[in-house]
Amino acid sequence: MPLPELRVDSSRMLADFNDLAFIGATEQGGVSRLALSNEDLQARAWLADRFMDAGLIVQDDDAGNLSGILPASEPNARTLLIGGHLDSVPNGGRYDCSLGLLTALEAVRTISEAGLKLPVNLEIIDFTDEEGCWQSLFGSRALTGVFAYSTNGDEERDEGPFRAALFRAGIHPGDIYRARRDPATIAGYLELHIEQGHRLEQAGMDIGVVTGIVGRTTYRMTFQGQAAHSGTTPTAERRDALRGAASYITRAFQMVEEQFPKAVLNCGNVIVEPGAFNIIPARARLTVECRHIDRERLSLLEAALTDLAKTVASEHRLDISIHQAVNMPVAHMHDTMIEVIRAASDHLGLQSMPLISYAGHDAQIISGFTRTGMIFVPSLGGRSHTPSEHTEWRYVEQGANVLLHTILRVAQGHKP
Amino acid sequence: MPLPELRVDSSRMLADFNDLAFIGATEQGGVSRLALSNEDLQARAWLADRFMDAGLIVQDDDAGNLSGILPASEPNARTLLIGGHLDSVPNGGRYDCSLGLLTALEAVRTISEAGLKLPVNLEIIDFTDEEGCWQSLFGSRALTGVFAYSTNGDEERDEGPFRAALFRAGIHPGDIYRARRDPATIAGYLELHIEQGHRLEQAGMDIGVVTGIVGRTTYRMTFQGQAAHSGTTPTAERRDALRGAASYITRAFQMVEEQFPKAVLNCGNVIVEPGAFNIIPARARLTVECRHIDRERLSLLEAALTDLAKTVASEHRLDISIHQAVNMPVAHMHDTMIEVIRAASDHLGLQSMPLISYAGHDAQIISGFTRTGMIFVPSLGGRSHTPSEHTEWRYVEQGANVLLHTILRVAQGHKP
Repeated sequence: MPLPELRVDSSRMLADFNDLAFIGATEQGGVSRLALSNEDLQARAWLADRFMDAGLIVQDDDAGNLSGILPASEPNARTLLIGGHLDSVPNGGRYDCSLGLLTALEAVRTISEAGLKLPVNLEIIDFTDEEGCWQSLFGSRALTGVFAYSTNGDEERDEGPFRAALFRAGIHPGDIYRARRDPATIAGYLELHIEQGHRLEQAGMDIGVVTGIVGRTTYRMTFQGQAAHSGTTPTAERRDALRGAASYITRAFQMVEEQFPKAVLNCGNVIVEPGAFNIIPARARLTVECRHIDRERLSLLEAALTDLAKTVASEHRLDISIHQAVNMPVAHMHDTMIEVIRAASDHLGLQSMPLISYAGHDAQIISGFTRTGMIFVPSLGGRSHTPSEHTEWRYVEQGANVLLHTILRVAQGHKP
Repeated sequence: MPLPELRVDSSRMLADFNDLAFIGATEQGGVSRLALSNEDLQARAWLADRFMDAGLIVQDDDAGNLSGILPASEPNARTLLIGGHLDSVPNGGRYDCSLGLLTALEAVRTISEAGLKLPVNLEIIDFTDEEGCWQSLFGSRALTGVFAYSTNGDEERDEGPFRAALFRAGIHPGDIYRARRDPATIAGYLELHIEQGHRLEQAGMDIGVVTGIVGRTTYRMTFQGQAAHSGTTPTAERRDALRGAASYITRAFQMVEEQFPKAVLNCGNVIVEPGAFNIIPARARLTVECRHIDRERLSLLEAALTDLAKTVASEHRLDISIHQAVNMPVAHMHDTMIEVIRAASDHLGLQSMPLISYAGHDAQIISGFTRTGMIFVPSLGGRSHTPSEHTEWRYVEQGANVLLHTILRVAQGHKP
């Protein structure tokens, strides 16, 4: 059977985009829809309504993931998941937290309205807390069963508010394990997302075909010194935690630039105690995040960063404690999915290029669970996680059509 | 008239010390008596009771300074001020916030009980907010008239709580100017304090004769960059405010060590926004404090520190704003007072040495107003602003006797 020449309804999708952007809209033109917040729950209710309007089966799992399902022509068919997320970072952009689901919704509606009977169920799924307001990629980790609801031994973190937020959203922590799915029932996973960089824009491309997602490891490092009077304590006797942390930040960036040019480092925060003008800092708690696309190099980078912390602490006569808070594996997209997305893009006359993703996505988790593919559309100026995040609508329409035709091709490959 | 061979009552002074240490006592054995707090007000009430027990005239001024006065033999005599403070830093030591006033009380009681008639009024004075919980050296600045009740254009500071604390302590902001005294009525100023360093201990000395107090300038520096996704933003395009601030801290310390070896630098805090693991820091607000005993070198140091901030900001493509929050002048103790303290110490058979103070004191402000002298007693291990702050009691007793004999000698020099 030749593939039908379907196209999505771009203006209907744009109307949905504008509706959804109202939920959690900020004064600056962005969106604040933190996972499990009232705004997130409101957006889910809106999406469930759209699923029902489209005649899809609405389903909630025990991790709060919300699905709209177009059943296959046959019972006991496998399910092609098409994912995204409604949650945003604080005052984030309108695209990151909507395009995955809106393009999936539009593609599935288009298939449903065409009366096509596919050999796989199509399941659009909104994953809980992609952004990690509470725990990064919470929903996809629950679905794949790699999730352990625990504090990871991180004693500095108070999990009480997270539990309260889960309960408010109707999620019972003890039941989260039930969200796990059997990979034998899954036909694959697709996700469309904005690039969040500007490689597509600079290359003049329409579509990015994601080949892999960088691994990411984060640490909380605590440099512990001794509070003392800032005027009367001789320099040689100081145990200045902030001076140590500052030296660490400076040297860690230098080391990464010199020895790990493909890696990405971020020190996103440092919290100093006691924090007074005239007291030598006793404690500096630093957040350190590193990313790399090569599994082996990431391991070497992790060791280099923790070794450097110990060296710097020792030089400044500080104690150091290092807690690994997050460890997201390097992920590779499935060769078949990469090829299908490229072919769909070619079929539509679009220019595509392979890309590594430096941002984490639910596809990162799911790639270890089922054949996974990911489509990027260009971000204006590479801006993301800010109200000025923007993607020209023609790129969104093109991406939705690539997603539609990727779904059709993947489904065709699953003919019973 | 030969000077009487008086000595203080050490055990009575120790009983007072133990009583006072209960007020604001912390679990760790320290004291929290923040200026204008309930504990501070309770300590003032206790001190006012001791003044009355000793037959002194109790007096409050419009800046909350609390005095106990032993009148001179003649009306219209000038007044020798003997100062100290009851307020402490959070969980500070028991000595910093008590010895000045307790030794002054004991010395004046001893003089009063001996029936001596002196040609000057002796006024023990507890200065408001020496430690700068609200505004450093508030009470002495009000008394000398160098105080301007204002926020110094520091828009980041909310003065509302300070005003509320003033009103609760019975201080009306609009009346503070009335605390100003006429220097023609003042015979001098004396203050005993713990050293807060360990030069006396290391040299095996009993008494430090302060010759000068370092000038101190503090800045709030704000490095302003751009928040962005920590994974997808290319290194060359980052405007990382924390990386800039960290580089500044590292280089500022290096510069001071190399070019200003007699200076003291502290970066007591840095506050990062937005402060998330996966967002490049947009803003880092840094507190910077520098001290120097030489007025000219301090000016050069200030210029070097602010120039360096601009250079580092430029190198990291950051904007920088620099606000000078505090500027305490370099202070010199009066030659006469230095000589009298040394002579009193010699007279008592004690070992003394001249010292610069690297900590600020009310004497710093008052030295520009009247002849000022300051006595240091040894600090065990140089520890201060911590519950483990300690001074052996024999040093306190010796210091009180030096203060007593300094008062007698200064008073003798004022015979009408």
